[in-house]
Amino acid sequence: MQRCDALARHSELPGGLTRVFLSPEFRAASEAVLGWMREAGMQARVDAIGNVVGRYEGSRPGLPCLMLGSHLDTVRDAGKYDGMLGVVSAIDCVHALNAAGRRLPFAIEVLGFGDEEGVRFGTTLLGSRALAGTLDPKVLETRDAAGKSIAEALRAFGLQSDHLGSVARRKGDVLAYAELHIEQGPVLEAEGLPVGVVSAINGFTRLRVTLRGEAGHAGTVPMNLRRDALAAAAECVLAVENISRTHRELVGTVGRLEARPGAINVIPGEVQFTVDVRAPDDRLRIQAAASIESEIRRISRERKIQYDVEALQAFGSSTCALWLMEQLERAVQAQGVRALRLPSGAGHDGMAIKDIADIAMLFVRCKGGISHNPAESITEADAGTGARVLLHFIERFAPAIPA
Amino acid sequence: MQRCDALARHSELPGGLTRVFLSPEFRAASEAVLGWMREAGMQARVDAIGNVVGRYEGSRPGLPCLMLGSHLDTVRDAGKYDGMLGVVSAIDCVHALNAAGRRLPFAIEVLGFGDEEGVRFGTTLLGSRALAGTLDPKVLETRDAAGKSIAEALRAFGLQSDHLGSVARRKGDVLAYAELHIEQGPVLEAEGLPVGVVSAINGFTRLRVTLRGEAGHAGTVPMNLRRDALAAAAECVLAVENISRTHRELVGTVGRLEARPGAINVIPGEVQFTVDVRAPDDRLRIQAAASIESEIRRISRERKIQYDVEALQAFGSSTCALWLMEQLERAVQAQGVRALRLPSGAGHDGMAIKDIADIAMLFVRCKGGISHNPAESITEADAGTGARVLLHFIERFAPAIPA
Repeated sequence: MQRCDALARHSELPGGLTRVFLSPEFRAASEAVLGWMREAGMQARVDAIGNVVGRYEGSRPGLPCLMLGSHLDTVRDAGKYDGMLGVVSAIDCVHALNAAGRRLPFAIEVLGFGDEEGVRFGTTLLGSRALAGTLDPKVLETRDAAGKSIAEALRAFGLQSDHLGSVARRKGDVLAYAELHIEQGPVLEAEGLPVGVVSAINGFTRLRVTLRGEAGHAGTVPMNLRRDALAAAAECVLAVENISRTHRELVGTVGRLEARPGAINVIPGEVQFTVDVRAPDDRLRIQAAASIESEIRRISRERKIQYDVEALQAFGSSTCALWLMEQLERAVQAQGVRALRLPSGAGHDGMAIKDIADIAMLFVRCKGGISHNPAESITEADAGTGARVLLHFIERFAPAIPA
Repeated sequence: MQRCDALARHSELPGGLTRVFLSPEFRAASEAVLGWMREAGMQARVDAIGNVVGRYEGSRPGLPCLMLGSHLDTVRDAGKYDGMLGVVSAIDCVHALNAAGRRLPFAIEVLGFGDEEGVRFGTTLLGSRALAGTLDPKVLETRDAAGKSIAEALRAFGLQSDHLGSVARRKGDVLAYAELHIEQGPVLEAEGLPVGVVSAINGFTRLRVTLRGEAGHAGTVPMNLRRDALAAAAECVLAVENISRTHRELVGTVGRLEARPGAINVIPGEVQFTVDVRAPDDRLRIQAAASIESEIRRISRERKIQYDVEALQAFGSSTCALWLMEQLERAVQAQGVRALRLPSGAGHDGMAIKDIADIAMLFVRCKGGISHNPAESITEADAGTGARVLLHFIERFAPAIPA
C-alpha cells in the first residue's frame, strides 16, 4: 500500500495522479520500481520500449521464466492501484523468495509495462506488444497531441527505438504470464470475495473519428447555413450511447473529444473524438462498431460534414488458460477463499502476451467497482490476500507439459 | 479597392494585416485617410481619442451633420475590408459630391474610428464611445500586454487624453449615423444580393456551463450505471442547436467544449462548454437563453449530473432606426437591387453612437461569409454597388422630423 502511495506521487500535476508514457514523472516512477526490484534481489533495467524489467534467476541462470507484472502508466486523474498494485505485489513476492534464499526451477520476471492505457499516443499495449514481437514498427510514427512521435519520445527518453527487436521474447522463454490487478468492476464486492480468477479479457475496438465542417463567426452565420462539426459530433456521441445500450454485455464510450478552433464566438469547424467499444463476444462487438460507423456516416451526410473514421486498434476477446486458472484457484482456496471465475471488462497486457504464452489473471476487489478515478480504493487486507495468493501460485507453479 | 489594398499595407508585420490602435502603422493609415479626406474637399483632423474626422460643410457652415464611416483598426491576421471599406466608401461619396460642386442642406462627417476591435487593450468601441460621450475616463487606465495604458499610448501618439470631453457630440449635432460594412456572414451571398440593409445589431448572451458526472472505466461500468458528463453535454449541444433553430433571427453556438479527464478508455466525469446566443430582439434572446438553461437542467436531472450555468456577459441589441432603413432601402432599390433586411450578428460602432443619434447600416456581400481572416474577399462590382447606394442615400437624405 505504501509503494502504491509512493508511485502515486509521481504525477504530472500535484493533487491528483496522471502519469503518461515517457513523461518525466514516468521516468521517476520507473526509477523507484527499478530500485525496489534490485532490493528484492533482481537484475533490473528499462528495455528499448520503456518497460521496466526485473529478473530473478531460478535454480540456475538462463532458465525460462514465469512472467508477472502489470503496467506503470496511468489514465488522467487516475487511481493509485490500477496497474501499480500488480507490479508492487509481484516484486513483494520475489522479495519474500529472495529473503528466504529460495530459487525455483524457473526464473521469474516482473514487468512494469510502459504503455498500457494509451493516454498519450492513443495506442495501447505498446510495451506488451513489443515483448510479444507483434508491435508493427509503423506504430512508432503515431504522434501525441504536441506532434511528437513515439519514436521521437523514445529517443528523447534515452531509448533506441530501432532496437525494438531486442525486446521481443520467443515462445519457449516465457512459461506463462500471470497478472494481479484490481477488478475495476463491482462483482467481487457483490460476492463478498477479496479476490477472483479471471476467465477471459473482453475484446475491444477503438476508433478515432474526425469531423470537418466549417468554422465561422458565431454571430453572423444563420443556423440553417452552418456546418457545425460539434453539433454533428454531439449526435455521434449519443449514437454511440444508444447502440451500446442495446445489449447488456456491450459497452461503448466517447472518452476524448476536442473541438477546434475552440473560441466562444467561433462555430467549431473540426472535431476529433474517440470511440471505445467492448464486449465478451467478438461478433457482438464487431457488429456494434459497424453500427456506430454507419450512424457517423448518416449523421455526417445529413449535416454536410466530411468524416473520417480511423480504426486505431481492435483486440479479440482473450481467454485465460484453463491450466493456469486451476493453479490460481488452488492458491485462492489455500487462503480459505472460495474461487470465483469472472470475466474482465477492462483490457490488460495479457491480451498482447497471449501471442507468446498462456495467460492468467487474479483480480483484487475494489470499492464500488470504481476505477480510472481518484476514488479508486482497496483494503490493505485484500491487497495482502492478493499478494499471498500470488506467492502461493508462484511457489507451486508447474509449467504446462509441452504439447 | 485600391485604397483598401493601400491601407492593408500599413501592417505590424509584412505578409499579413494586423494594425492595432495607436501603433506606428495605425498612424500611417490615419495619415493616408487624412490625405484622401482633404482631396475629397473635407477639413480633416485626428481627434483627442485618435479618431480620424473629416467634415464636408453643407449649404452653409456649421450645420448639423449626417455622420458616416467605420473603423481603421484591425484584428490580428485580418482581412482588408472589415472597417476600411466603410471609411473609403464614405470618402468616395463626398469626393463625388465635391467634384459636382454639390452642397447639401446638412454637413457630412466621415469618421475613421480608432478602436473598434479592441485587440490592443481588450476594450472595444473606444472611439465611438468617446464621440457619444459615454466613455468612462477610467477606461483610459486599461493597459495593453506591454503594460502601457491607453492614456499613455494617446500621449505618446501626440494626443491629449484630458481633452476627451472635446470629442463628445451633442444630440442635435448628429442627424443620423450610417455605416457601410462587409456583412461578415453568408446571407447576402446565399440570397444572391450585393448589399442588404441592417435591421439591428444583435445583442448577445454568453454562458459557461459545467457538468459533473462520474468518471469511470470505459470497459467495466455497464451502460445503465454510468453518469457520463459528455453524453449529457452532447444532449445540451443539440438542445442549444434546436432552440436556436426555432427562430430565423436567433443563433446559438457552443464554441468551446472540454471533456475531462479526456482519455480514450475513461468515461468523461466533467465537461465544460460555452454558449453564445444572439438575436436582434432582446426578448427573443433572453427567452432562448432561459430555454437553454432549462434544457440543461432537465438533461442533468435525467442523467443524475450536477450542473452549473455561469452568466459571462450580456449586451442588449441596437435597433436600426426605421426611418433610416426605409431611406437606405429606397437607395438599394434605385440600384435595381431587392432590398433585404438582415440583422448584424457582429458588433459595430453604431452600438455606441446610438446613444446620441439614430443609426443605420448597409452591408456589402463578402465571399463565403468569411471575415476576421486574410481570406476575407469582396468583388469590385459589389463595392461599387455599395458606394452607389450610399451616395444615393446621402443625396436624398431627409432628417427625421424632431419629435
